[in-house]
Amino acid sequence: MARQQRAIRTRRIFLQAAAEVFDEHGYDAATIAAILDRAGLTRGALYFHFTSKEELARGVLQEAVTLDGVTPQTFKLQEWVDMALLLAYRLPREPLLSASIRLSVDPRARGLFGTRWPDWIALGTDILTEAKERGELLPHVDPEATSRLVVGAWTGVQLVTESMAEPLDLVAEISALFELILPNNAVPGVLARLDTSPHRAARIIEQQRAVPVP
Amino acid sequence: MARQQRAIRTRRIFLQAAAEVFDEHGYDAATIAAILDRAGLTRGALYFHFTSKEELARGVLQEAVTLDGVTPQTFKLQEWVDMALLLAYRLPREPLLSASIRLSVDPRARGLFGTRWPDWIALGTDILTEAKERGELLPHVDPEATSRLVVGAWTGVQLVTESMAEPLDLVAEISALFELILPNNAVPGVLARLDTSPHRAARIIEQQRAVPVP
Repeated sequence: MARQQRAIRTRRIFLQAAAEVFDEHGYDAATIAAILDRAGLTRGALYFHFTSKEELARGVLQEAVTLDGVTPQTFKLQEWVDMALLLAYRLPREPLLSASIRLSVDPRARGLFGTRWPDWIALGTDILTEAKERGELLPHVDPEATSRLVVGAWTGVQLVTESMAEPLDLVAEISALFELILPNNAVPGVLARLDTSPHRAARIIEQQRAVPVP
Repeated sequence: MARQQRAIRTRRIFLQAAAEVFDEHGYDAATIAAILDRAGLTRGALYFHFTSKEELARGVLQEAVTLDGVTPQTFKLQEWVDMALLLAYRLPREPLLSASIRLSVDPRARGLFGTRWPDWIALGTDILTEAKERGELLPHVDPEATSRLVVGAWTGVQLVTESMAEPLDLVAEISALFELILPNNAVPGVLARLDTSPHRAARIIEQQRAVPVP
């Protein structure tokens, strides 16, 4: 059991190191040597888990779609908002997430590995479909088309935000994005009770840290 | 005069060729040889206009922000919509535009040349500021913040659209994006009279082609 846990931790260290190197240099310029150097572990340990740079990239992309931190809410639409806010909060702090965007917008890496956008779109579609069944959405809203547009919008807002000369807060930008689109999605009674505040993401994460893991 | 016109045309051929090569292979993998090959002109002709790959990339980016086709409308908000729809219509048809996005989302090229996003944001901000002065916008709308979000959203929707396995029409996606965001920006009387239809872009371009240039 201890050995298995160590293996999981080692695998995680290599994925983190690979994500950092992909994020900083791009897929093509990333080398196994740089990833080993970042991980501070041996080549033997690496090859036990990953046989190539390609496999490391696939591993990074595999970890990148996560609902971690999103908990059941009174309104499904709040879960949709939480998913977007939490991702915005975590992305600048977690190389696995930013590397996965960098791999997705790089046409060569995208050609090799595809993107995780279809999975994000599917997650959002599920949440919005349930929201619609519960009567939270206006009748004209198409869950899949809306989820697809918002995954795109989220991604582009992230790219523009990180490219700006003046530093902008991604969570604040994503919060503003949802304030822009929710009035045309949510029924008024639900809209008034959704929390799209930029502080919500940090608050959720702090609360979850405060709860002792059983 | 004939010589000057020829020079302008030659410069344009090189920019087009460079845009196609950047768009297909990315900035790093693009070579002067490939650009010459695509242009079908001599190395001497190239160096008369551009001394390096860097200069070609700057030239491509310089051409990429354009209000071509956007004409004065009753509502400034319609001009904002037209700018976005026309760009969506033209992008898949004009390598200069798609290459400029590819250069902007590539962190290495972006580090060398910056992006044109600030210029797009400024164009949108000007239009929205005038729309606000004319009473077309709801009181809470901040022209600059809204323009920035929509430039980001436009870019990300384009990236996700081109990456999908099922072919999607970018103009239809951008049309849907504006239907999502306009209700929270436009005053109701203006909103009802805006044309966000995906067919609008093709119609505008056909009409302009039909008008004989004086």
